[in-house]
Amino acid sequence: MSITFTPQQVASMIEAVAVEGVRTDPIQGIAALAEASADDLSFLGNLKYSAEVATSRAGVILVPLEFVGVPQTNQVFLRVAKPSFALALICSVLEAKLWPKPPAGVHASAVVAPSAVVDPSAHIGPLCVVGENTIIAAGVTLEARCQIGTHAKVGPDSWLKPGVLIGDYCVLGARCRIQPGAIIGSDGFGYEPIDGTIHRIPQIGTVVLEDDVEVGANTTIDRARFSRTVIGRGTKIDNLVQIAHNVRIGRQCLITAQVGIAGSTTLGDHCVLGGQAGVAGHLTLGDRVKLGAQAGLFEDVLADGFVNGTPAMPFGLERRLVVLSRRLPDLFKKVDSLAASLDSPKS
Amino acid sequence: MSITFTPQQVASMIEAVAVEGVRTDPIQGIAALAEASADDLSFLGNLKYSAEVATSRAGVILVPLEFVGVPQTNQVFLRVAKPSFALALICSVLEAKLWPKPPAGVHASAVVAPSAVVDPSAHIGPLCVVGENTIIAAGVTLEARCQIGTHAKVGPDSWLKPGVLIGDYCVLGARCRIQPGAIIGSDGFGYEPIDGTIHRIPQIGTVVLEDDVEVGANTTIDRARFSRTVIGRGTKIDNLVQIAHNVRIGRQCLITAQVGIAGSTTLGDHCVLGGQAGVAGHLTLGDRVKLGAQAGLFEDVLADGFVNGTPAMPFGLERRLVVLSRRLPDLFKKVDSLAASLDSPKS
Amino acid sequence: MSITFTPQQVASMIEAVAVEGVRTDPIQGIAALAEASADDLSFLGNLKYSAEVATSRAGVILVPLEFVGVPQTNQVFLRVAKPSFALALICSVLEAKLWPKPPAGVHASAVVAPSAVVDPSAHIGPLCVVGENTIIAAGVTLEARCQIGTHAKVGPDSWLKPGVLIGDYCVLGARCRIQPGAIIGSDGFGYEPIDGTIHRIPQIGTVVLEDDVEVGANTTIDRARFSRTVIGRGTKIDNLVQIAHNVRIGRQCLITAQVGIAGSTTLGDHCVLGGQAGVAGHLTLGDRVKLGAQAGLFEDVLADGFVNGTPAMPFGLERRLVVLSRRLPDLFKKVDSLAASLDSPKS
Repeated sequence: MSITFTPQQVASMIEAVAVEGVRTDPIQGIAALAEASADDLSFLGNLKYSAEVATSRAGVILVPLEFVGVPQTNQVFLRVAKPSFALALICSVLEAKLWPKPPAGVHASAVVAPSAVVDPSAHIGPLCVVGENTIIAAGVTLEARCQIGTHAKVGPDSWLKPGVLIGDYCVLGARCRIQPGAIIGSDGFGYEPIDGTIHRIPQIGTVVLEDDVEVGANTTIDRARFSRTVIGRGTKIDNLVQIAHNVRIGRQCLITAQVGIAGSTTLGDHCVLGGQAGVAGHLTLGDRVKLGAQAGLFEDVLADGFVNGTPAMPFGLERRLVVLSRRLPDLFKKVDSLAASLDSPKS
Repeated sequence: MSITFTPQQVASMIEAVAVEGVRTDPIQGIAALAEASADDLSFLGNLKYSAEVATSRAGVILVPLEFVGVPQTNQVFLRVAKPSFALALICSVLEAKLWPKPPAGVHASAVVAPSAVVDPSAHIGPLCVVGENTIIAAGVTLEARCQIGTHAKVGPDSWLKPGVLIGDYCVLGARCRIQPGAIIGSDGFGYEPIDGTIHRIPQIGTVVLEDDVEVGANTTIDRARFSRTVIGRGTKIDNLVQIAHNVRIGRQCLITAQVGIAGSTTLGDHCVLGGQAGVAGHLTLGDRVKLGAQAGLFEDVLADGFVNGTPAMPFGLERRLVVLSRRLPDLFKKVDSLAASLDSPKS
Repeated sequence: MSITFTPQQVASMIEAVAVEGVRTDPIQGIAALAEASADDLSFLGNLKYSAEVATSRAGVILVPLEFVGVPQTNQVFLRVAKPSFALALICSVLEAKLWPKPPAGVHASAVVAPSAVVDPSAHIGPLCVVGENTIIAAGVTLEARCQIGTHAKVGPDSWLKPGVLIGDYCVLGARCRIQPGAIIGSDGFGYEPIDGTIHRIPQIGTVVLEDDVEVGANTTIDRARFSRTVIGRGTKIDNLVQIAHNVRIGRQCLITAQVGIAGSTTLGDHCVLGGQAGVAGHLTLGDRVKLGAQAGLFEDVLADGFVNGTPAMPFGLERRLVVLSRRLPDLFKKVDSLAASLDSPKS
């Protein structure tokens, strides 16, 4: 980070209730209590780690009102009601400084089709490509090397990091945020073997990301066979996730890295899928379904279900089977011993 | 979709046996019976879903000859022998209209090496890069931001979607179709630890895709250590798949999303690998081998084998173990009870 | 491969102890004994495969000093102490010829910010982007379509293959080697659900790759929430790997394809993670920890631990449970039979 703040600047930024200790040098970074150097700001998010404050080298520490302790030499405590909330505030300020919104306009090296409609307030970065009949709304940022296909739409204030592809005919809502290398609108994987030769089934649908959707780096979302693959409003998708054709994901879901969701599966709202989990095709998951990391799901799950394992089963059962399976060596011995005692009964 | 057809145009396109009902408005999309709006075309692929026809709002419905029913107001039935085949026909026509083949020629922003040989009928899109001594055959399409390395070949009528990389010395056959962001020809992962330091082993081989191979978005295929990594004719590979160095995949295989195949493994023809499955290195899989989703394979499989689970075993055994493992709680109880009854025998 | 050597050139390259047989035609490739054609060079790496030499069609074969045998017509044996070492030498020579270092200079189509500091000895390829205040050190190679963000650093002699992204503020050490499509410095996946709406937590940290780190194709490494995600010196990462925010990986580790490591987890030095393995967040792995392919790790592992399975457990236990689980059908039968004999006791 190349941005510095004095302790006083931080104090006023987070409206600190009290400033304790003396320090004039600015802080230049943020770190956990145990890792912080004298130039770092740190924070006590949970009182059970209070002991770490006394040994932390951090130059500035956000502490809760009820924390008991005094700063070391050249160290400042900033007292606030919720240190983690105050930290988030600082991070937001820093982020806005570290990543200022690029200026409006189209870079000279970008290739924008004549029929594309680019709002004058949008930023089209170097070496971007915008296809025919595509609409780029107000406040959109396309960082360098992004491509928006033909007949596509990118909604207001969406921010695309470098190297993103939005395929032909696909639609992004407002305030979407797409990480580098994500591919929205690749062909669905639809084939039909006929007499030993595999024939491609045309994939002529689109992908729709509703408002406030975020997509991770190098994630792939396939266009529908026909109609639409849909990611619901506010859903967040991590890196290297695969979303197949005709999947419909509800609102405010969290899809962790390397998850794969096969074709035509539907997720409700507020679902949470753990890393590397897989969901088979043509399934229906209700609202608030949770799927554990690396789980493999092959059947529908009702609302509020929490499943784990491969093939996935209710979480409690899966936990129990894990415990029992580790006792298998004992079980085998016990059964052998029972068999032996039956063969030579005492009585 | 921005393309419309009147019911009469559709009828002639699919050579409908009969047109029933009256409707003059064009249809503008395709959707399943339950989801269709009045502007959509839909189809009854299987007679067991016949009841859905009566409640569908679709403006045009493809129905089989033996279907019994009459269209609603402003709805048209088109009778055909095989509605799903007719639908595929329509989709192909639509695809050709939605994605017309780009015109021959090299975009002004592309960087093509002087020694590259680009057929005049090929399309080289914006911001593409073509390396020295590379050959681009007739009818090839490179969409925007593709790169073909040096000394490489792209066979006739291959179509590369945006942002594809074909590495130096690699070879694509005819009619290959590569989805966005795919990397063909990254270095193999070959290292040798010597005295605690990991040394790189040069990876000087290539990748060969035979005719009619298709590769998914952001999939990676490594070049061989020496000689060639080979993907056989007609094989289709989904998104985010990893194919390591020196792998040889036979003809007409289907490799589903997020599969990983480790180095020097050989697959026969007509193999099918389920999503997220992994195959260890130096294995041999015969023809028509099937591997279940998320399976982890660590040993050879003979032709026609169907394996599942981690570590993978014959499918029937794996299914049986899944059932039995869910009965473990009962088994433990039963053994405890047997032990108890032996400790205090009735007799 | 488009480069040829005569047997004599190879002999002097590897300082062969003896040249046996006669052949004047050059060799044009390298292949295993069983697969080699008359134009290939091959090698006998292990005496137990000696029988393959007699039937190999290779034009030149590297054989160890103690090998007993004579070359066929038009075939040459080159005797060396260690054939596999000699082969590595040949491959290194070939690699340097196949991939000569590109010339210093900035391609006319690259977009380099005025404030960027690019060493004159660096190669900036076609359509690259280098951001404001970024430093490109001596001897760096950026192949085509690479992007280095703002305020970033690429250390001396690092070689970035096509289409790599190094995000803003990220730092690469010396001699790093990055495969195509890798994303270094995407946002961490940090969100907080508040009242049913998911809020983004700013990710304002960076990624640091120490010297001699190598990263695979389409791999993603997220920037830290604050502070740094760190990949230690000499560590090698394969394709399609996901490294989450604030992960710290030690030195000389091997991270195989499609592995995922969740946030804030720390790995020691010399760790080896098998393909498709997953590691949960906030864990600590000691030095030399090994994790089997597809394993799912949910707890800390001490130094020298070797774990496998999901959830991961000590390797020996996991192997035993696999064996026992395959005997479950027998166990169930045995218990049934015991129960039956108890119900109708002999005595």
